[in-house]
Amino acid sequence: MKIAVLPGDGIGPEIIAQAKRVLDVLRSDGLPIEMEEAPLGGAGYDAFGQPYPSFTQNLCRQADAVLLGAVGGPAYDNLDRPLRPERGLLAIRKDLNLFANLRPAILYPELANASTLKPEVVSGLDIMIVRELTGDIYFGQPRGIAVNELGEREAYNTMRYSESEIRRIAHVAFGIAMKRNKKLCSVDKANVLETTEFWKEIMIDVAREYPQVELSHMYVDNAAMQLVRNPKQFDVMVTGNIFGDILSDEASMLTGSIGMLPSASLDQNNKGLYEPSHGSAPDIAGKNLANPLATILSAAMMLRYTFGQEAAAQRVENAVKAVLAKGYRTADIFEAGCEKVSCSGMGDAVVAAM
Amino acid sequence: MKIAVLPGDGIGPEIIAQAKRVLDVLRSDGLPIEMEEAPLGGAGYDAFGQPYPSFTQNLCRQADAVLLGAVGGPAYDNLDRPLRPERGLLAIRKDLNLFANLRPAILYPELANASTLKPEVVSGLDIMIVRELTGDIYFGQPRGIAVNELGEREAYNTMRYSESEIRRIAHVAFGIAMKRNKKLCSVDKANVLETTEFWKEIMIDVAREYPQVELSHMYVDNAAMQLVRNPKQFDVMVTGNIFGDILSDEASMLTGSIGMLPSASLDQNNKGLYEPSHGSAPDIAGKNLANPLATILSAAMMLRYTFGQEAAAQRVENAVKAVLAKGYRTADIFEAGCEKVSCSGMGDAVVAAM
Ligand SMILES: CC(C)[C@H](C(=O)O)[C@@H](O)C(=O)O
Ligand SMILES: CC(C)[C@H](C(=O)O)[C@@H](O)C(=O)O
Repeated sequence: MKIAVLPGDGIGPEIIAQAKRVLDVLRSDGLPIEMEEAPLGGAGYDAFGQPYPSFTQNLCRQADAVLLGAVGGPAYDNLDRPLRPERGLLAIRKDLNLFANLRPAILYPELANASTLKPEVVSGLDIMIVRELTGDIYFGQPRGIAVNELGEREAYNTMRYSESEIRRIAHVAFGIAMKRNKKLCSVDKANVLETTEFWKEIMIDVAREYPQVELSHMYVDNAAMQLVRNPKQFDVMVTGNIFGDILSDEASMLTGSIGMLPSASLDQNNKGLYEPSHGSAPDIAGKNLANPLATILSAAMMLRYTFGQEAAAQRVENAVKAVLAKGYRTADIFEAGCEKVSCSGMGDAVVAAM
Repeated sequence: MKIAVLPGDGIGPEIIAQAKRVLDVLRSDGLPIEMEEAPLGGAGYDAFGQPYPSFTQNLCRQADAVLLGAVGGPAYDNLDRPLRPERGLLAIRKDLNLFANLRPAILYPELANASTLKPEVVSGLDIMIVRELTGDIYFGQPRGIAVNELGEREAYNTMRYSESEIRRIAHVAFGIAMKRNKKLCSVDKANVLETTEFWKEIMIDVAREYPQVELSHMYVDNAAMQLVRNPKQFDVMVTGNIFGDILSDEASMLTGSIGMLPSASLDQNNKGLYEPSHGSAPDIAGKNLANPLATILSAAMMLRYTFGQEAAAQRVENAVKAVLAKGYRTADIFEAGCEKVSCSGMGDAVVAAM
């Protein structure tokens, strides 16, 4: 079980440190976990002048799974686009062919108050968003800024999906729907964009292989509304890279506790990169204030999806539930009557609960 | 004051009928309003085999303003893309050069309960979203579905903005910010897309002409989150066509009363198309159940933006506020203790309150 550990920037190193402690416990109890670290994002730029240095690339290619903290921060905001930390994230996704991004939006009953939505609208919320991650307008060619035939500057990007790209993400989404409530909503803008009309056509075709799954379709603007109006109508949602970027962030914020939400990005063979859904939070970096639970839960997803260690995954998830039930809270999820803990304090609590 | 009236499909004719009654009142009180009707969307297809027939086109080109109900419905869902009702909407926007779409998201105090968000998060909400409407991936070339060099089908669309397209929408947005709280948030995905990096660059350049306006920038995924987390941080937002489509729908749903929200789409000379933010609601069409207030408020926006009739605009808006205060509610905004009225009943109430 070779794991490349990429702390990244901002709060990345702090939250990764706590996830490593959790994995250390599992190792001392017998799991053959090996971890090695490398820099990504701003850290990659500082160490090697590249957001995704070849040192990091080699380590990740050889590993079975990657555990990532977060990348980016104001110190790097003025770099040229190819050197910006986000490029490290895009490069590693593409390099490792991590086309299936799974982002759960789950409301923990203990944290129900954190949501800005009324309790009756979000209680019990449990959505899984399946976002295609290596295609679409993120990577489509041509792209750039140029002077057009009228002598005026213009900029352009290309949204693009091939049939096989859509088919493979469809199979991932239907597979997940089969393990859940057999309801899948595919989000498109088929009334305007040929790319998403094609997306919808392929989804309908793949659906014939999963007759038990009820497939529905929704326009992206309506999906953005329905997530606010009645989010519990959704179970599994599948969509392209850019719509998935927007909708998965919206969905995670419905819970009010984005500091709790993990994510997985998988290739065809269950190799995966696991990271919290939140960012690098430069404002609180280095202060031992961050919430490490999304990273710890990302490690649990890694145990489940890449290593097939369901028992170990549940052990970690149950430990997280137990510390919440005991009332431990980092600052981002704190409320009166609970016990405020630091990032490492939360790590202590989870380790103790294991 | 020549107004082309396009009832459209679904509930369109019903809500337009009520807005016409309001305009009739103003005409009998002396405003030189002339109204003529033409079909758009599915109605255009039924009458002339085209969603935006040349009959309608001629009327709209000659008019000073267009008042639209809504377009689309299941009866037309299986038509080819060029014949689909939505294409009528895109065609008329492009034909009349309506590049500036203004979509307010306002929470009426009387309707505060309709929001799915907690009262403290949304009370007093008043956001104006300025969406570019004739560029971006909606209209960019090339687009289509083709077989690629590997012999595989793929589909593509082009996101594209020229400098002048961005400049003119920037001026509209800064102009609106000047009349409000002098805070403008430009939404982009400049960390990934060159098109929106260019957008941001031009926004910053135009900002130098409006030194009193505080310009900020936000990534679209973060904006989708912040609208849920703390929507009152926003005053005026400006963004491109596709991000604006998604975010303006999300923002309007924060109020819980999308049946109340008008919109304006303006060209360079204040010619405009005015329509409710909601759709054609085929499920309740023909039942005299729809809420006509968004359409009536769209007529008020028309009086303000195209005709410079501020007093008449306020007279309509005050009548709407008065009927809400009196407790009249259509089904979509009904709550216990209020008086439920039909679509035409709401029209009666507004006319009476004028
Ligand atoms: C940082 C950025 C490039 C990235 C994305 O847009 O994919 C992020 O928003 C995410 O969702 O992981
Ligand atoms: C119907 C559709 C083409 C349209 C759009 O995407 O612009 C609608 O969603 C809107 O926002 O007016």
